Amino acid sequence: MDHTLPQTISLLARTPAALNALLRDLPESWTSRNEGENTWSPFEIVGHLIHAERTDWVSRTKIVLQFGEAQSFEPFDRWGQAREIQGKSLAQLLDEFARLRSENLAELRALNLQPEDLERRGQHPSLGVVTLSQLLSTWAVHDLTHLHQISRVLAHQYCEAVGPWSKYLGVLQCAGHSSAS
Amino acid sequence: MDHTLPQTISLLARTPAALNALLRDLPESWTSRNEGENTWSPFEIVGHLIHAERTDWVSRTKIVLQFGEAQSFEPFDRWGQAREIQGKSLAQLLDEFARLRSENLAELRALNLQPEDLERRGQHPSLGVVTLSQLLSTWAVHDLTHLHQISRVLAHQYCEAVGPWSKYLGVLQCAGHSSAS
Repeated sequence: MDHTLPQTISLLARTPAALNALLRDLPESWTSRNEGENTWSPFEIVGHLIHAERTDWVSRTKIVLQFGEAQSFEPFDRWGQAREIQGKSLAQLLDEFARLRSENLAELRALNLQPEDLERRGQHPSLGVVTLSQLLSTWAVHDLTHLHQISRVLAHQYCEAVGPWSKYLGVLQCAGHSSAS
Repeated sequence: MDHTLPQTISLLARTPAALNALLRDLPESWTSRNEGENTWSPFEIVGHLIHAERTDWVSRTKIVLQFGEAQSFEPFDRWGQAREIQGKSLAQLLDEFARLRSENLAELRALNLQPEDLERRGQHPSLGVVTLSQLLSTWAVHDLTHLHQISRVLAHQYCEAVGPWSKYLGVLQCAGHSSAS
């Protein structure tokens, strides 16, 4: 389907509550474990989402509107969550993510973007020319990439426990896929 | 990690609220579309979860406790959601799923299962001998399989809209995996 701003905002607005419902007060045996070396736990994934809220989506939107293709976006630091999670609890991270998302959506709405704005172009440091419409679509699919990842990381903790059912459980067949923004 | 009943219940108890936060009042353009022929929309997936609550987990638990390996489980109907979704709204399905899950967890808790009960064995119609511990682990991972699937189906709707970012978005690389219970 085509990108529309109301559809994108409707999804973006729901992610913090969905993660909150899934993860808050879940035992740490679920939330602090990952899929092995150089993989992320649900706790770290929420830290990554916070880092993206701070540095990526709305910042890049403003760069497109202000500079177009003349100024390349700052590369996104895929390990930037280290600062976000230091000394924090998962509950604090969920609160912080919800607060930042709410502020960012308020800022996005205040820009009052028109259809012609969505066609404006920016410069991605590795992908080249992108449109604002593509950037905002990516914000939503980035949420879904990490919801997909969180469900896979949680399931991984029971990959042995399910015994012979593992072959029927799609999430356990998912080897993971590169993800970045 | 090993299966424990409190861990499993903590996850099972959160799924209805997580799906509710993600899907309730989301535009139908997100919730009614699938990934193509013979695939499921988020709406149908919630119907499938309802069907499983009615026919699978607690029913099979009781069969294990009552009959052990002597009575095979009824095969699960992977298309049994047709009856569940007929004439219903997504909001009604989310309410129904939450109600059934709550009742099933109350019934599970009332069984007051002890560690030795979790080692009891049942007979799966195609997998053969399984333990109650494996069945209850599978209940939780089945939730996660479908949360994983819902995030993928939603993301699929924007697979073109994201433009060149698609190669960075893991959820768009996921081709899906068989899933059943």
